[in-house]
Amino acid sequence: MKPKISIICLGVSDLERSRLFYEALGLKTHDFDPAQNVVFFEMEGTWLELFSRSELAKDAGVTDIGDTTSGFRGVTMAHNEPTKEGVGRVMAEALAAGAKLIKQPEDVFWGGYSGYFADPNGHLWEVAYNPYTDLT
Amino acid sequence: MKPKISIICLGVSDLERSRLFYEALGLKTHDFDPAQNVVFFEMEGTWLELFSRSELAKDAGVTDIGDTTSGFRGVTMAHNEPTKEGVGRVMAEALAAGAKLIKQPEDVFWGGYSGYFADPNGHLWEVAYNPYTDLT
Repeated sequence: MKPKISIICLGVSDLERSRLFYEALGLKTHDFDPAQNVVFFEMEGTWLELFSRSELAKDAGVTDIGDTTSGFRGVTMAHNEPTKEGVGRVMAEALAAGAKLIKQPEDVFWGGYSGYFADPNGHLWEVAYNPYTDLT
Repeated sequence: MKPKISIICLGVSDLERSRLFYEALGLKTHDFDPAQNVVFFEMEGTWLELFSRSELAKDAGVTDIGDTTSGFRGVTMAHNEPTKEGVGRVMAEALAAGAKLIKQPEDVFWGGYSGYFADPNGHLWEVAYNPYTDLT
C-alpha cells in the first residue's frame, strides 16, 4: 500500500450547512453539483469529503449508532500553521464561520501551541504550531 | 486557512498493536521512539498519527465517551488505487495484517469499485478505485 490517504470523509447531517462552513474557511470545492449529496474539497495532500452520515454508514455497510453531533469519535484532524499567530488567526476564522470553540490555543506539553474547534457536526480540528516538524 | 490537513490522528487503545498493523501495511514511521506514546507515519500529503485515545480526548479537553472499538464514528479514510486489482490487493494486505473485513470490494453506485476494512481500533478505511478522479 502506497503511503497515502486519498480522502478523509466526514459524515454530516446537513450537507449545505457543512459546505458553507468549509467554504467560509476558504476551501474550494471540486466539481460541485448541488444535485449530488456529496461535496469534495480539493486540498494539498488528502482531500476532504462531506457526505450524509447515514449514507456513509450505508456505504460501508455498518450501523449508524446515531452519535450525530456530540461525543468523542477517537479521530481528529490537524491543520498546522507556521506561527502561533497563525494558529490564533485560523481559530478566529473558524469561530467566525460558525465553529464551536473546544479549546483555546495554548502552549502544550509536547512543546507546541494548539487549540481545537468543532465543525458543525462535531468533527474535531486541532490548529497547531509545531516548532519541530513542518507540516504546514 | 491554507487548504491542507496536516495530520489525521487516530485514537488507539494499544499503540504497539496499531503501529505493527500499519507497519505491516508498509507505512514508515517518522522519528519513532518507543518511549513516546505517539507514532507518526510519514505519508504523501497528510500524515497519519496514532495516539492513545484517552490522551487524545484529554488533549482536546473533551470527554471520552468510551466507544473504543465499535460503533460508527461518522469518519472514514479512503485509500485509492489505480485499478480494481489494486483494491483487491490492498484489501488482502490489510486482512493479512489483522484488519477486520467490513465490506468486500464491489462495484458501487457512483461508478467506482470499493471495499472497507476496520483497523485494530475500529477505524474505517475504504479502499477504492475511482475511474473519474485520480487521487492515487
